[in-house]
Amino acid sequence: MQKQNLLPVFIESLILQLNKLPGIGSKTAQRLALSILKKPDGYIENLMDSLDKVNTQVRLCNECQNYCEQDLCLICQDEKRNLNSICVVEDILDLIAIENSGVFKGKYFVLHGLISPLNGVLPSNTKVDILCKKLNESENETEVILSLNSTSDGDATCHYINESLKNPNVNVSRLALGLPFGSDLDYLDSRTLSQAIENRKSF
Amino acid sequence: MQKQNLLPVFIESLILQLNKLPGIGSKTAQRLALSILKKPDGYIENLMDSLDKVNTQVRLCNECQNYCEQDLCLICQDEKRNLNSICVVEDILDLIAIENSGVFKGKYFVLHGLISPLNGVLPSNTKVDILCKKLNESENETEVILSLNSTSDGDATCHYINESLKNPNVNVSRLALGLPFGSDLDYLDSRTLSQAIENRKSF
Repeated sequence: MQKQNLLPVFIESLILQLNKLPGIGSKTAQRLALSILKKPDGYIENLMDSLDKVNTQVRLCNECQNYCEQDLCLICQDEKRNLNSICVVEDILDLIAIENSGVFKGKYFVLHGLISPLNGVLPSNTKVDILCKKLNESENETEVILSLNSTSDGDATCHYINESLKNPNVNVSRLALGLPFGSDLDYLDSRTLSQAIENRKSF
Repeated sequence: MQKQNLLPVFIESLILQLNKLPGIGSKTAQRLALSILKKPDGYIENLMDSLDKVNTQVRLCNECQNYCEQDLCLICQDEKRNLNSICVVEDILDLIAIENSGVFKGKYFVLHGLISPLNGVLPSNTKVDILCKKLNESENETEVILSLNSTSDGDATCHYINESLKNPNVNVSRLALGLPFGSDLDYLDSRTLSQAIENRKSF
């Protein structure tokens, strides 16, 4: 494309970096880069400072692999939470969603990814083995709730965790699969409907 | 919102900075910040390096206010271009669009904004006075093509430039207003249609 010669190389390289982010195509990356240039003085410095702090000071919680600034994240520091109930989530956005529902009062474990053989994501690319090791060494009665997406990757990860756990003290369950609240049977896909029938609950 | 307590403050401050960019809402900013964290080693360093270079080494061309790395931009350095024809554009994206059309072989002038009295954008917030001063001091016959959006802000800016030019050597024109190529009269808005009738051209 001709325009490649028109922009200074430094702007081109910023566009290239922004283009690597999810949902940011080349046109959006161009617009973002030029709007960063137009921002009032100090904006770029603040953005760089945030990036630097995130890069150097954010780490993973020793207990649950959540993002934090100290050894333990805020949830693991909270002594009111039930130590013997662990909710396993894919990433911190899922953790936030469950936390916002207000139902769960235990601790979390963040996998940072789901096992996906088709996409080449192996157990070692996630924190799943750290979870299994931790649970297999647990001496207390522990409940594990697998709160993973209802997708083939979620299924694969649940299966892997269930197979890896050898500790009789650990009870594993998975989030219920069925009708979402407010759903109309007419409009549901057949997979959801068949799961809802399979998992029907007697009164 | 509860989630504010769940993310480390450094991630929150990165989200805040990203949220200031156009088209990036709070949810997208969150997703971008977390995906930046998940990027392979070196990504954040490269992004910071690009931002730093853009911040410190990109400047405005002495002649046309386009972005560049030296005193003159690539277009102003090009000696094959017609010095006596100046295309005035709002920003570099418009310059790229005209350059890609391949029709114009003169030089450019980038205003970095349009005058917009309703939004509080005064002539001094753009480079329009630099353009007018430069043109009023021009000793050669110069053609100025105002390639500005067909909006009220574009109209206001064209009017301001036309009023400010006192040099008889300078001929000002504006891009034609009329039917876009491939348009169907049925589907055109009445403003475009009335402009096309007003500006009709005799065979």
